[in-house]
Amino acid sequence: MNAVNEAAARARLAADDLAVRSRSDKDRALHAMADALVAATATITEANAQDVQRARDGGTSEAIIDRLRLDADRVAAMAQGLRDVAALVDPVGEVVRGYTLPNGLELRQLRVPFGVVGIIYEGRPNVTADAAGLCLKSGNAALLRGSSSALESNAAIIATLRAAAVDSGLPADVVQGVPAETRESVQDLMRARGLVDVLIPRGGANLIRSVVEGSTVPVIETGVGNCHVYVDADADLEMATQIVLNAKAQRPSVCNAAESLLVHRDVAATFLPRVLKELAAVGVTVHGDETVGAYGDVVPATEADFDTEYLSLDLAAAVVDSLDDAVAHIRRHGTGHTEAIVTASQPAAQRFVARVDAAAVVVNASTRFTDGGEFGFGAEIGISTQKLHARGPMGLTELTSTKYVVIGSGQVRS
Amino acid sequence: MNAVNEAAARARLAADDLAVRSRSDKDRALHAMADALVAATATITEANAQDVQRARDGGTSEAIIDRLRLDADRVAAMAQGLRDVAALVDPVGEVVRGYTLPNGLELRQLRVPFGVVGIIYEGRPNVTADAAGLCLKSGNAALLRGSSSALESNAAIIATLRAAAVDSGLPADVVQGVPAETRESVQDLMRARGLVDVLIPRGGANLIRSVVEGSTVPVIETGVGNCHVYVDADADLEMATQIVLNAKAQRPSVCNAAESLLVHRDVAATFLPRVLKELAAVGVTVHGDETVGAYGDVVPATEADFDTEYLSLDLAAAVVDSLDDAVAHIRRHGTGHTEAIVTASQPAAQRFVARVDAAAVVVNASTRFTDGGEFGFGAEIGISTQKLHARGPMGLTELTSTKYVVIGSGQVRS
Repeated sequence: MNAVNEAAARARLAADDLAVRSRSDKDRALHAMADALVAATATITEANAQDVQRARDGGTSEAIIDRLRLDADRVAAMAQGLRDVAALVDPVGEVVRGYTLPNGLELRQLRVPFGVVGIIYEGRPNVTADAAGLCLKSGNAALLRGSSSALESNAAIIATLRAAAVDSGLPADVVQGVPAETRESVQDLMRARGLVDVLIPRGGANLIRSVVEGSTVPVIETGVGNCHVYVDADADLEMATQIVLNAKAQRPSVCNAAESLLVHRDVAATFLPRVLKELAAVGVTVHGDETVGAYGDVVPATEADFDTEYLSLDLAAAVVDSLDDAVAHIRRHGTGHTEAIVTASQPAAQRFVARVDAAAVVVNASTRFTDGGEFGFGAEIGISTQKLHARGPMGLTELTSTKYVVIGSGQVRS
Repeated sequence: MNAVNEAAARARLAADDLAVRSRSDKDRALHAMADALVAATATITEANAQDVQRARDGGTSEAIIDRLRLDADRVAAMAQGLRDVAALVDPVGEVVRGYTLPNGLELRQLRVPFGVVGIIYEGRPNVTADAAGLCLKSGNAALLRGSSSALESNAAIIATLRAAAVDSGLPADVVQGVPAETRESVQDLMRARGLVDVLIPRGGANLIRSVVEGSTVPVIETGVGNCHVYVDADADLEMATQIVLNAKAQRPSVCNAAESLLVHRDVAATFLPRVLKELAAVGVTVHGDETVGAYGDVVPATEADFDTEYLSLDLAAAVVDSLDDAVAHIRRHGTGHTEAIVTASQPAAQRFVARVDAAAVVVNASTRFTDGGEFGFGAEIGISTQKLHARGPMGLTELTSTKYVVIGSGQVRS
């Protein structure tokens, strides 16, 4: 048996225990973990310094090194994240449906944990504590496969969390790291059908595609966002300008940032000169079609631009003849993440909402709101762009399955 | 492009249309389809006669031929099934969650169709009409890949349904058959990621395993049931006898029939002689462990018996030392379908319900109740034994995804 399968078998035992724990048991462990992280700040930052040194020796860019780096403030923020999760309602045990059948059987559909959740992620080591906390609160044992660049940091964080779990009366194996030195552990997780209940890949498009296509374990696909803002003929153009600027430039590196702008032909002449000037002022390069190019300084767009998730200060832009053309463009190029319309027309808003097939459809607001925190879920394990199980930001509820409980008094079927 | 991908592309267009249709449009089409099936009874039964003849020429058993055979009554029953689906509430548009965020954004999570649903099934041609009706009502275009043995029957049914769709103003491609002559179309469906939103295999364990393991399209796993009845120390033994008989023998060929009996040691001497006699009287062969064998005429059980979904008048049986031993046995051998306990003890019932990880956990009733019809869903597309998306009987609700709709008044993120 490989290391991943062994870890998964231990995780199952821990999950069986965790599934029947009360909220107070789980919250006590989350607070113990938070306290332990703060107490272990020196150990964690020293381990992190080794990762940072290795990255620097390997010629990693300062931007990436900044994401990797942990200091006392960042460790404190991880601890606060765990306390925030402790404050959230426990999803386990919620009655989703319930009624009494004509034959007297009492039927209830209850939320239960998945059991063992595997999370494959890149980059920031704070994801380690976040993911462990969300899994614990939802009653799941976590198998965490972080980035090889954060090896020492993640090991120190996981050791701290495991010790705190034991101190608060839970099995250590509610949180386990999975070897991150090679790609093999990712393959092993993908083949651990029956041992791992669900895999959640978080990271770049290539990682996600390879897990989605190769895994025999059920996967929740997260994150790729080619989000559009469509400015309708009836838009408030000042509102549209602010929404486009915010959606593109407020934080360009994230999946809910806008990557494409579509403008109705009727307002192109009034809207485009103004928005192109404002976009240029904040450093955005617009990749525009010919019509857009007539109104300002743009790089000519190729068809590929409309399929690109730039994650940078670049924006594809096109003029469309109608709302239906905008919807058709989004169907062709969108990734089903977040699509926004700016319009003062109720029928236009209604038609766009009904016809656009995406995790989130936004009317008169920035695409940047598609986020578990913004949606009021208190926390987020990722944003699902698939249609099965969970779609959009995933909070604690989305980390659960359900179970039917049927209570009878001797009923048999005739 | 292969035939499956071409059909899936047509299905997407039909699904885009169907997604925005009202309940009355869909119900009208369902009634038109029901009427058309009845009107086409002669055509359908003649096509079916060809399938039956081919099966007979190939030496197929009469039991299988009986499942394949359609007569006027069975066609009428298919039609009634469609009318029953028309009478069900439309799941599309249901508001699953909704509230206003602190910044004034109005957030709603709405039920929406998946889009294109592929169903791979064996055996009875009536599944063709059932599956088409459930997909239509839930707003999904159906790609139906039936059994090659029912080729002519399915073609006649699908042609009838498509013509009726068009007559009632829907696109014909809301229902399409997929070539069933070779295994290739199953492979093509499994590779149609992005074209098909979800695949539901219905049939034997081998079919389901191969789809689950090979598909890049998200799959909902259905059906394998190694269901247990555990008779606790505190059971009403008359109730236990009736439940065991019903769970095993009322219809042994289905996935919610019991395959294993577990008896608490404290009641073995009083319960086993009685239940073994009653089981023998209805023709059940018991594959018992040594202790069970001491109380009656049994075939000695091997470890493999406890892992077998017999789907016949066979039952594995063992004596356990405690409720926790029963739970451990179920964890080792169960398939997560339906597990029942017979007990008059509330703490025992509660412990069993909390610790057994299955789609349905039943107290003091037969395992045979795990069924969409029995659960009050009005219809069923299958019984999911996976934890992602749907678990247990799947009705119309389980054939939908959700979409977040966010209505603002110019909000941007700071």
